[in-house]
Amino acid sequence: MWEIPRPSEPPPCAYNSASILSRGREVEGSRALAERYFQHTFPNGLTLLGERMPGMQSAAMTLMLQAGSATDPVDRSGSATILSDLVLRGAGSRDSKQLTDYLDRLGLQRSSSVGVHHSRFGCAGLADRVIEGFGAYSDIVRRPHLPQVGFDAARDLALQALAGLDDEPRQKLLIKLREWHLPSPYGRSSMGTKENLEKLTLELAKADHAQRYHPSGAILAIAGHIEFEQIKAQVEKHFGNWKGQAEGDIKIMPPPGNFHHEEQQSEQTHIGIAWPSIPETHDDYYTVRMAVEILSGGMSGRLFTEVREKRGLCYSVWAGYSSLKGQGSILGYAGTSNDRAQATLDCFMTELHRLSDGVTQAELDRAKIGLKASTIMSGESTSSRAGAIAHDFFMRGRIRTLDEIKDSIDAVTVDRVNAYLKANKPGPFTIVTVGPKALNIT
Amino acid sequence: MWEIPRPSEPPPCAYNSASILSRGREVEGSRALAERYFQHTFPNGLTLLGERMPGMQSAAMTLMLQAGSATDPVDRSGSATILSDLVLRGAGSRDSKQLTDYLDRLGLQRSSSVGVHHSRFGCAGLADRVIEGFGAYSDIVRRPHLPQVGFDAARDLALQALAGLDDEPRQKLLIKLREWHLPSPYGRSSMGTKENLEKLTLELAKADHAQRYHPSGAILAIAGHIEFEQIKAQVEKHFGNWKGQAEGDIKIMPPPGNFHHEEQQSEQTHIGIAWPSIPETHDDYYTVRMAVEILSGGMSGRLFTEVREKRGLCYSVWAGYSSLKGQGSILGYAGTSNDRAQATLDCFMTELHRLSDGVTQAELDRAKIGLKASTIMSGESTSSRAGAIAHDFFMRGRIRTLDEIKDSIDAVTVDRVNAYLKANKPGPFTIVTVGPKALNIT
Repeated sequence: MWEIPRPSEPPPCAYNSASILSRGREVEGSRALAERYFQHTFPNGLTLLGERMPGMQSAAMTLMLQAGSATDPVDRSGSATILSDLVLRGAGSRDSKQLTDYLDRLGLQRSSSVGVHHSRFGCAGLADRVIEGFGAYSDIVRRPHLPQVGFDAARDLALQALAGLDDEPRQKLLIKLREWHLPSPYGRSSMGTKENLEKLTLELAKADHAQRYHPSGAILAIAGHIEFEQIKAQVEKHFGNWKGQAEGDIKIMPPPGNFHHEEQQSEQTHIGIAWPSIPETHDDYYTVRMAVEILSGGMSGRLFTEVREKRGLCYSVWAGYSSLKGQGSILGYAGTSNDRAQATLDCFMTELHRLSDGVTQAELDRAKIGLKASTIMSGESTSSRAGAIAHDFFMRGRIRTLDEIKDSIDAVTVDRVNAYLKANKPGPFTIVTVGPKALNIT
Repeated sequence: MWEIPRPSEPPPCAYNSASILSRGREVEGSRALAERYFQHTFPNGLTLLGERMPGMQSAAMTLMLQAGSATDPVDRSGSATILSDLVLRGAGSRDSKQLTDYLDRLGLQRSSSVGVHHSRFGCAGLADRVIEGFGAYSDIVRRPHLPQVGFDAARDLALQALAGLDDEPRQKLLIKLREWHLPSPYGRSSMGTKENLEKLTLELAKADHAQRYHPSGAILAIAGHIEFEQIKAQVEKHFGNWKGQAEGDIKIMPPPGNFHHEEQQSEQTHIGIAWPSIPETHDDYYTVRMAVEILSGGMSGRLFTEVREKRGLCYSVWAGYSSLKGQGSILGYAGTSNDRAQATLDCFMTELHRLSDGVTQAELDRAKIGLKASTIMSGESTSSRAGAIAHDFFMRGRIRTLDEIKDSIDAVTVDRVNAYLKANKPGPFTIVTVGPKALNIT
């Protein structure tokens, strides 16, 4: 089975190509908008976002707190990850087992993750069960038990996951690529480091919870079979009197350098290439997205065609836009056998340099169609929509409509893409490799 | 980010818990059924399955041909995989680049894979574009160019993917587990072996195409925003005069043994445990599914609770039902640090043996809710539905309704589960490990 994977933070499909699908196209825009979307910021700083999706029986919720890897205490990277596990081990009136049993009895499919900016808790299920679960999620973020035995288990698992990375050279490469490409602390891995994780104690985790689990700047997004008034009342009930304000400055440090080789006796060489781009709030955001689609969008993307299909150089190759607040990057990856690694890197770089020669109208047309289709399709998934409106609000302070996104895509012309690419050659590059030997960077 | 992965062939979520969601519950059953589903077998043996999903703009198509790893020629395992790549490299009036460009211009998200029974080609996109793509998919399976240069690239990529397995010990373990658990040729990996792939030639691939790409027993399933008459006419137009009949007997051979250790200097030890179960057409299928849910369904599943949450023994642990035609298996997995591997295996086995002591009503209730919720949610995804109705037809010769599945789940009682578990202790076990040293099997 083949796939074209994309960088994971944030998922470009789920978040960057965030679409707002107005099904009620026959009614005039603003009414359809009002019927479909809801946004409310409570006095304590928590913002509730809602999207009604007619025809669905399910709903999905995403709760994002400003506790990401970037705000992990300086010498305790991985702290948010430990905490996001630990808070699930008993909260409110339920111990760990009771809490898990309760959420399973609601039939909720759950996930949790830590990104650069946020800790996220998500669940999906039948709509009324998701809403019923708000009380438990309020307990989880506000009233976790934070037991010692849970802390020990959570830290053990985090250390194991870190050690296991040596068995996953591809994932290791992507972590290293961010570390060498982005300024610290944005480039730090949410998995932490062995040294930092070993320094953590239950008391430090408790202090971190008090410091970073706050309503201020938090986002609760829900999409699916919902009624706004009911949601608002439930969120008010469970989160309305939550208090607190996150503090703390981030001290920005440049990454260690531009080129890095991590020696590992692996069967394949893993190559990561990154370069800076504009943030997604920039007027040329869709100009850049189109260029990246042409480079690596569908199967007809240049990288896939040149590196994989024509030359059979490697099994997996892609590039994608990756978004942080106020800062965009393009990340690229190729995994290949050791003897083809140099040729793969050379071919990859050739394609990047070739971008400044411009793209064709046919390439742009395909890219537009691809991005619009995936936009509409993500509009049929409650989980994608909950993630997308939360991401939109965090990045832009508001939810975008489908028509706005469609118009933005349609407005991109081949002249604009080519002018941009001519004026903005890819680079400066960060190149990271994992494998038995270093490659020539020319 | 945590997840509870499941075995991949077939995905129990997408296929085994295949749900049929009748939204038109207010109209009486048979009419709702007729409005929602469609099934037609053409004289050439191709079966068309359709599911209308109101409220969707997209559609997803799955095309399954009886060319799976089990029918790969004896000394040429991997042949179906090479072929499933090669047929996409030019077909009908379009060369490789034109075909890729055309499908991207339709905005179709594509996938292809080879399982035990079938080669599958799938696509999803706006409904009218998916239907427009039928002509190209007809070319792909009926009139591929099968060029030498495409064959060389496809085989190179397959060899690379195989070599890359050493960097993915978890995936390698799951392949080895099937190989040692299932009788040959059902246990053979669709990725083939190096020796076999090197024997393949373009001529052999062409012969294999002539031999196995046939309408007889093929299934084309489409779900989403569709009209049955239109679909039927389009399929008839593009596939109606396709001829051919697959031949060939499968010679069943027992697996090499029950215990296998694959030495690898990995950071983690990967443990696979399998044992035989009843096929999914058996009356007790949902009895078994409930037992497996209780063992490893939600976060409150026994394996997750005991092995991971309570004892912090390993990062990833699960078990799931895996289905072949006429034969079921339970597959289990745990990945852990080398020093905890023996304790993890012991704890895993303890949980398996403990099954025969029975389960509680509360455990069964949670399992039912979880399975019904995931059933309803997969009913909101066109790709899940297309896969589910195709799987249902292949396994049972018909599509099942949601009510039928719900009734089957509801009919399971704690007495029935406990009687089954008492009479059917798990085993005999196949245990495979990948890591630096072998474990004690007691």
